[in-house]
Amino acid sequence: MSRGRKDDTMNDNDFNENTDPLRIIPLGGLGEIGLNMMAYECGGDILIVDCGLMFPEPDMLGIDYVIPDIGWLRERAGRVRGICLTHGHEDHIGALPFVLQELNVPLFGTALTLGFVNEKLREYKLDDLVELVTVRPRQSVDLGCFRVEFLRVAHSVVDGCALAITTPEGVVIHTGDFKIDQTPVDGQLTDLASLSRYAEAGVLALLSDSTNVEREGFTLSEKYVGEAFAEIFPKCPGRIIVAAFSSSIHRVQQVVDVAVAHGRKILLNGRSMIANVRIARQLGYLTISDSDLMDLKELGHLSPEQVCIISTGSQGEPMSALTRIAMDDHKQIKLEKGDTVILSSRVIPGNERTISELINHLYRRGAEVFHEKVSEVHVSGHASQEELKLMLNTVRPRFFIPIHGEYRHLVKHIQLARKVGIPEERCILATNGDVVAFYADTAAIVEKIDSGRVFVDGKGVGDVGNVVLKDRKHLSEDGMVVVIIGINQSSGALIYGPDIVSRGFVFEDESQDYLETSRAVVLEALDELNDEMRCDSEEVKQAVRQALRRFFKKSIERRPVILPVIMEM
Amino acid sequence: MSRGRKDDTMNDNDFNENTDPLRIIPLGGLGEIGLNMMAYECGGDILIVDCGLMFPEPDMLGIDYVIPDIGWLRERAGRVRGICLTHGHEDHIGALPFVLQELNVPLFGTALTLGFVNEKLREYKLDDLVELVTVRPRQSVDLGCFRVEFLRVAHSVVDGCALAITTPEGVVIHTGDFKIDQTPVDGQLTDLASLSRYAEAGVLALLSDSTNVEREGFTLSEKYVGEAFAEIFPKCPGRIIVAAFSSSIHRVQQVVDVAVAHGRKILLNGRSMIANVRIARQLGYLTISDSDLMDLKELGHLSPEQVCIISTGSQGEPMSALTRIAMDDHKQIKLEKGDTVILSSRVIPGNERTISELINHLYRRGAEVFHEKVSEVHVSGHASQEELKLMLNTVRPRFFIPIHGEYRHLVKHIQLARKVGIPEERCILATNGDVVAFYADTAAIVEKIDSGRVFVDGKGVGDVGNVVLKDRKHLSEDGMVVVIIGINQSSGALIYGPDIVSRGFVFEDESQDYLETSRAVVLEALDELNDEMRCDSEEVKQAVRQALRRFFKKSIERRPVILPVIMEM
Repeated sequence: MSRGRKDDTMNDNDFNENTDPLRIIPLGGLGEIGLNMMAYECGGDILIVDCGLMFPEPDMLGIDYVIPDIGWLRERAGRVRGICLTHGHEDHIGALPFVLQELNVPLFGTALTLGFVNEKLREYKLDDLVELVTVRPRQSVDLGCFRVEFLRVAHSVVDGCALAITTPEGVVIHTGDFKIDQTPVDGQLTDLASLSRYAEAGVLALLSDSTNVEREGFTLSEKYVGEAFAEIFPKCPGRIIVAAFSSSIHRVQQVVDVAVAHGRKILLNGRSMIANVRIARQLGYLTISDSDLMDLKELGHLSPEQVCIISTGSQGEPMSALTRIAMDDHKQIKLEKGDTVILSSRVIPGNERTISELINHLYRRGAEVFHEKVSEVHVSGHASQEELKLMLNTVRPRFFIPIHGEYRHLVKHIQLARKVGIPEERCILATNGDVVAFYADTAAIVEKIDSGRVFVDGKGVGDVGNVVLKDRKHLSEDGMVVVIIGINQSSGALIYGPDIVSRGFVFEDESQDYLETSRAVVLEALDELNDEMRCDSEEVKQAVRQALRRFFKKSIERRPVILPVIMEM
Repeated sequence: MSRGRKDDTMNDNDFNENTDPLRIIPLGGLGEIGLNMMAYECGGDILIVDCGLMFPEPDMLGIDYVIPDIGWLRERAGRVRGICLTHGHEDHIGALPFVLQELNVPLFGTALTLGFVNEKLREYKLDDLVELVTVRPRQSVDLGCFRVEFLRVAHSVVDGCALAITTPEGVVIHTGDFKIDQTPVDGQLTDLASLSRYAEAGVLALLSDSTNVEREGFTLSEKYVGEAFAEIFPKCPGRIIVAAFSSSIHRVQQVVDVAVAHGRKILLNGRSMIANVRIARQLGYLTISDSDLMDLKELGHLSPEQVCIISTGSQGEPMSALTRIAMDDHKQIKLEKGDTVILSSRVIPGNERTISELINHLYRRGAEVFHEKVSEVHVSGHASQEELKLMLNTVRPRFFIPIHGEYRHLVKHIQLARKVGIPEERCILATNGDVVAFYADTAAIVEKIDSGRVFVDGKGVGDVGNVVLKDRKHLSEDGMVVVIIGINQSSGALIYGPDIVSRGFVFEDESQDYLETSRAVVLEALDELNDEMRCDSEEVKQAVRQALRRFFKKSIERRPVILPVIMEM
């Protein structure tokens, strides 16, 4: 497969910047978990690896998704040859619907990865506009001066790949997310043989997944989860509900295998679970016979010991299928004593309290619950320290750049690389926006480009900034008080109000007295202004704000947002 | 020590409810972590055990503390004989300053517990008003018909006790928080001997700590943390900062011992750390020689390898000492490469992201960081499964009531009790407000009283309810839009506005166009009303709200709080 360089692109603006032979520029995922996106720039060509999103952190109030800022790419759009995707997780493909609207370039990935991507593009009505190119492991594509070979890695989503990127300056190995599972469910081992082949010829740089660098030893094989299921299932008297990430096709396969062996039918719950199972079956990554798969509507025809429901909602998302079941608010499923719920997924940081509440509610419904903390019903998809060392020793790169991790993970991964003998000066701690340039036989961070995060809120992409978020935070803590005052602009006389309305503060029910007192405070503040000052809206606003702020702080120690509205009449 | 029943109390209202010989009524802490408070009622007397607070959950926006609703006690104030405190943690003593304002009764506890309580009461200027009675382990107090013996238990705070409560109906063992540490730092073992003595005579009920019921095996001894310090300290080239809970006096002692052995001076950072160390030293629970303790102001006179700072802020609280250090915003302490920070505390659920960010910032400053996840620098203060079984088997109660736990912990603790042979019908799963009554030789939940949580926000106790919180939540997600309209009440003509102001929405900077369009939407909605309807404020408000809601949803998919203000002119 080969894609030539388009002639017109040589005229692209600011091409002169490209005096360094090879530049690697992280646009997301270095210094944070999620939002993975990396640009490789060489000889006028730009190659992008992954294009992920991040779910909002707790202080990003009201935000739906976070995507990388692609301002830098936007200015160089004509030189982008394509996006290579390592695997089909949201933090690697989730920003595509937003980024492709501005940057229409072909996508390269394995069949399942592109299956998931296509589903996503269909939702955003982009599926007819974007070219998807399916690549098999050990197959290469040429993108301008880059040759990219896809190499199998084991991970929690099926069909994941590392990339061996051959550039005019040397080979870069970009691991994507990986673990070195010795007994993967599909038998597809991490392709250490190919990595060794590249290592023999010499690797310029290794960019390796840092997610689990704080964990000692080896990550358990995915097969362990199947064994845990095999232990739990025979002891369950009633229905079994397994909640898992809908992209975890291996996990689903293992549930199916154990369930069918124990005479249970499979019923799917949750939109993305139904979609992903359909895609994975169509592409041959998941084996469920039609006779074992039933529609949730048929639940009533089965006795409890014949039922295995595979569901989304393992993070306790408020509107999810599993939360509705836990709150006894699900159309088809009503939990009873004897039922078992297995949360076969990790707790995403930030969701601890929500999931904890979910489990409490499941117990209130009478179910028994198995989860990561009390049973081995989940294993990680990321390499632990010993696997990371094995990757470093297999690839033996000249330079090492840790990727996919918060700042501390990157630091720890470099400490690990130092332990296996990579000299300090060849370990590069880069974070988003750092441009790593490779010269002759050195590499260094040579500049910092604008990078960052863009918030998606509803249909708005990027219009919610820090001021809005700061206001939302302030509003969320003590609510808002609006004061409406009408002032005659010639006499300075008060001719309307003050009217006070509030939300999220205290003025409810029996707080009428407090409202009256607040009004008096405003009147007093106005009295202290002379006629001229009262004709100046800004002056009045400031006086009102100050007086109320002081009064609220002293009387009840709260600091609501105070919004004076002055009508000039 | 003895406190007789006051004569006047026999006239207390609704005393007739007390037909059951013994009633146990959880007012907090059963079905939640924190907020521990239990009432024992017998023969006209009420005894309270503990009076804790809870730090707000993420959805309790702007709330400072959560305390138990004591409405039920308020109506029976004259019959309350006193509050016995098991130990000095916030979730057992933190609500005292609020509760004592309504219920002035004597407090009973060990010296350190009351030392912490007194500090708290001083802050609220209550210290002169409340009677504190110091009790030593194995000492008893009589409170009405109750005799309460305090029995030593090991826990993460020094001087903790279980209570053996002798009632006319039998003995109840109330463990408080405990672990069965075989090598506690102060040598004070959990008093299994006394518990056995009660068991021999027969125990009516055991109420036991469920916090760690999901953990298998035994909880590690506090001494392990000292050993971890002893391994880490000699390897640290620069300054060492240990962050710990200021109430963890044993932890502080172990830091001090290792630091002094390595020639480091102790400097304290954080208000509560300074206060608690002072109290513990005064009472003889902590040994630091004056020559080893230095003021933080003297930091400049010490070389890095002479410094050990013990600090608060292990939870990444925004204004805390440690966070300021991590953000390079601390007056005296500036981190450098070579410095080491040890987070010697657990991650309180809900704080995961904040602490994770704290650690990243510490690494950015150049420090090395040890924390619970990567090193054994913290152990729990609560009993794991094997210890809980040992407690059950030692006390051999007739009835078992799990306490201190979320719903799932209570369920799991009963499963554990069943395993050691307590029959199902003698395990009582009670949650807050359930009245457990003991008859002859049965016990059962006989009614549910009003219980719940009261929010403290600034100086306001209980004035923030669910409507205010719901508004804050709504405001936090999409902000607020205020629309001001003046309408002539005789003609229905629009004579002012519409003015639109917003906070936390989108109307910033370049959104002027959108603001204009929104104004047009309001005008259109007003046009559709006839003159009569326009004179009805409610009618106008509803029309404006509906039109804007529809417009915002369609154009940008957001749902701000819309607050129309109609001036009748």
